[in-house]
Amino acid sequence: MAQNIYDNPDFFAGYKELRDTGWGLNEVLEQPALRALLPPLAGATILELGCGMGQFARSCCEQGAAHITAVDVSERMLEVARRENAHSRIEYLRCAIETLELPTAHFDCVVSSLAFHYIQDYAALVRAIHLWLRPGGALVFSVEHPIVSAAGDTPGWIKDPEGRKLYWAVDNYAREGERVEKWFVDGVMRYHRTLATYINTLTENGFRVARVEEPEALPEAHVSRPTLEEESRRPPFLLIKAIRE
Amino acid sequence: MAQNIYDNPDFFAGYKELRDTGWGLNEVLEQPALRALLPPLAGATILELGCGMGQFARSCCEQGAAHITAVDVSERMLEVARRENAHSRIEYLRCAIETLELPTAHFDCVVSSLAFHYIQDYAALVRAIHLWLRPGGALVFSVEHPIVSAAGDTPGWIKDPEGRKLYWAVDNYAREGERVEKWFVDGVMRYHRTLATYINTLTENGFRVARVEEPEALPEAHVSRPTLEEESRRPPFLLIKAIRE
Repeated sequence: MAQNIYDNPDFFAGYKELRDTGWGLNEVLEQPALRALLPPLAGATILELGCGMGQFARSCCEQGAAHITAVDVSERMLEVARRENAHSRIEYLRCAIETLELPTAHFDCVVSSLAFHYIQDYAALVRAIHLWLRPGGALVFSVEHPIVSAAGDTPGWIKDPEGRKLYWAVDNYAREGERVEKWFVDGVMRYHRTLATYINTLTENGFRVARVEEPEALPEAHVSRPTLEEESRRPPFLLIKAIRE
Repeated sequence: MAQNIYDNPDFFAGYKELRDTGWGLNEVLEQPALRALLPPLAGATILELGCGMGQFARSCCEQGAAHITAVDVSERMLEVARRENAHSRIEYLRCAIETLELPTAHFDCVVSSLAFHYIQDYAALVRAIHLWLRPGGALVFSVEHPIVSAAGDTPGWIKDPEGRKLYWAVDNYAREGERVEKWFVDGVMRYHRTLATYINTLTENGFRVARVEEPEALPEAHVSRPTLEEESRRPPFLLIKAIRE
């Protein structure tokens, strides 16, 4: 069964508080990089996998998207989305990404922000997206960078006796699969995959890799958020744009 | 001016000794992965950039390649190549990769093993290779993995007081450029580039990315070389196969 950690009340409260600050790593690094990879949105039919609270879906509408199917497994997230980011051209749909059924060759763009690392069977998802996209359509997605997701049950940050972060350690990079971590609550499950797997699964299933991004914590971001200086030692996110052939 | 560290007598002696063991990481991991990415060699016209002692060039001939232009900047390496791996269909050529001039649309395959991280201007090299390859031709190359090359002047292995390797630390991943290290001798210069740069420079200059590999230290390799168990915590090599369009 698909994990639905976002409906855990404690997780949800912690997560929403982070997002509401407006200067989490997502807002400062990941979202600008994701948006820069999007094809022209005017008139486009879009599928968003893991739409969360709907900010991205609404902004696509504001940039002229014709229709957005915005999918999330979490009822709590969708409740916020419907309240705060309703739009006549957004259809919010509660469904696990893994069990989604959609028309074939229907979408101009499939976009997903930081959701694919929750999906156990990435290859099956890539094949499904290939069906849902029109030829020439774009898949644009972000995940935790494999350098980050390699950790989990292994150390990650190596700290000094005062708890300051010294180094980010990459262990077990080649060992793909489950990583269970505490993030707001215990037992959050994600799946680590190597870069090679992220890319080859696309090229093996009818996609052309157009661009890869590893957004960097910029000095101007450090000003507003001092911990970004520590974060800048590792690439937090991997983004890929691929064209369905 | 291009670096020619392989003609340093101390470097050359240390390097040749490592290669002669036959169970360096190159032999156990990198070479099998590189060979698996090659297009069919029978009848092919091949360019090898950084041919070293010529083992690879000779094996391509033995698999039916029509002709190999095998380039290296090091006279010491080429001296071994001409003595130990001469072949009627190999032309050994002493030249820095950066200053090479070759006919356009001439080669079926350009291959390079662990040389591109010595090249300062990767984009210029990619554009040159695009000229030299025939449409549909393959570029297959390996480099130090960016997870490894990110270190250099920053720590890399974090060790315990007894000198045992504990963690591989990734720092300054996003900071591309020179890394000066001791490897047999002081002052060996390499260039760190992110994965995104390795891939996007290809897609921006007329190549399609076909496959990426990050070969893993396998248990059977551990048997013959115990330190591979430590090495397996990080991916030592990145290999890319790209098709010239």
